[in-house]
Amino acid sequence: MPIPARFSRFETLGAATQPQFVQRVMEIIEIIHLFDDFERKDILTLLERMTCFRAPADSPIVYEDEPGDFMMLLLHGSVEIVKKDSDGIYRQLGLVGPGKVLGEISLIDDAPRSAGCIARAELTFAVLDRDGLSHILENDPAVGCKILMVLLMMSTARLREISTRLANLLGEHVGLM
Amino acid sequence: MPIPARFSRFETLGAATQPQFVQRVMEIIEIIHLFDDFERKDILTLLERMTCFRAPADSPIVYEDEPGDFMMLLLHGSVEIVKKDSDGIYRQLGLVGPGKVLGEISLIDDAPRSAGCIARAELTFAVLDRDGLSHILENDPAVGCKILMVLLMMSTARLREISTRLANLLGEHVGLM
Repeated sequence: MPIPARFSRFETLGAATQPQFVQRVMEIIEIIHLFDDFERKDILTLLERMTCFRAPADSPIVYEDEPGDFMMLLLHGSVEIVKKDSDGIYRQLGLVGPGKVLGEISLIDDAPRSAGCIARAELTFAVLDRDGLSHILENDPAVGCKILMVLLMMSTARLREISTRLANLLGEHVGLM
Repeated sequence: MPIPARFSRFETLGAATQPQFVQRVMEIIEIIHLFDDFERKDILTLLERMTCFRAPADSPIVYEDEPGDFMMLLLHGSVEIVKKDSDGIYRQLGLVGPGKVLGEISLIDDAPRSAGCIARAELTFAVLDRDGLSHILENDPAVGCKILMVLLMMSTARLREISTRLANLLGEHVGLM
């Protein structure tokens, strides 16, 4: 399978169904409970549509505002999430590691990346793009439901976290809306 | 089917598959494009698991912080969304009307309601609870995927909106994180 140009900034490691990647994903999902509903065969259905990549420390993974049609599951290494403030200066939004899913918002809504990502330590990650997700939704909708439910729980958790921060800030600074 | 106690604050109108409700839902989803992937039979699969209710103007629909295992699709009327600020004073977060889906966050993550809702004009709405959603995910996962994708697109849109407001506020008031 040829690697699309948008992944050319990474070193391609190939199919996510290679034993070392399957094993790593199994280790990861035992720790993060978002995937508790997945059986081993569901994970394999997902990994069959994913490709693994490597990126060196300090390299950009995703740029804010660029189009993006894929999400990443971090397998090894760490990633800094950054966003430009109103003066154009990059601010750190967070530092995340193995098990973290990134990029799912643009995968879903097809809008530009809301933040950028930089590898802080050498990174390996598995990628699912929109074609891969569509293939699963069409051909194995039961697994598709499990994947979407994981994305929904992640999105919901982030929404609650950000809403609380917003409400607190509004309360403190300008009174709530 | 007996109506669970948590709906006793509403007047029960019965199955959402009654012709007037089916017709209203069809009108609504033609306007809001979130449901573009749904065929008529998908909508009926969804409505088979929904029940309709009515609530008078100025009545509480959902209280902030109460448990909640259902979401609502507004068919007629309008709803004020409110949230207590740090002084315990209710602040309006928004005013929404027909076609709006409310309550999906607690349906997904089983955590208490993040905001309250009050009917501002007499309200009719269709309810899907967690049992209903689980039934669809298990028995018709292709329709389940479509429903979860709608919830995911709603959640993603709200996340982008709130993130932008938060980033702007942080930039203005305290510098971005």
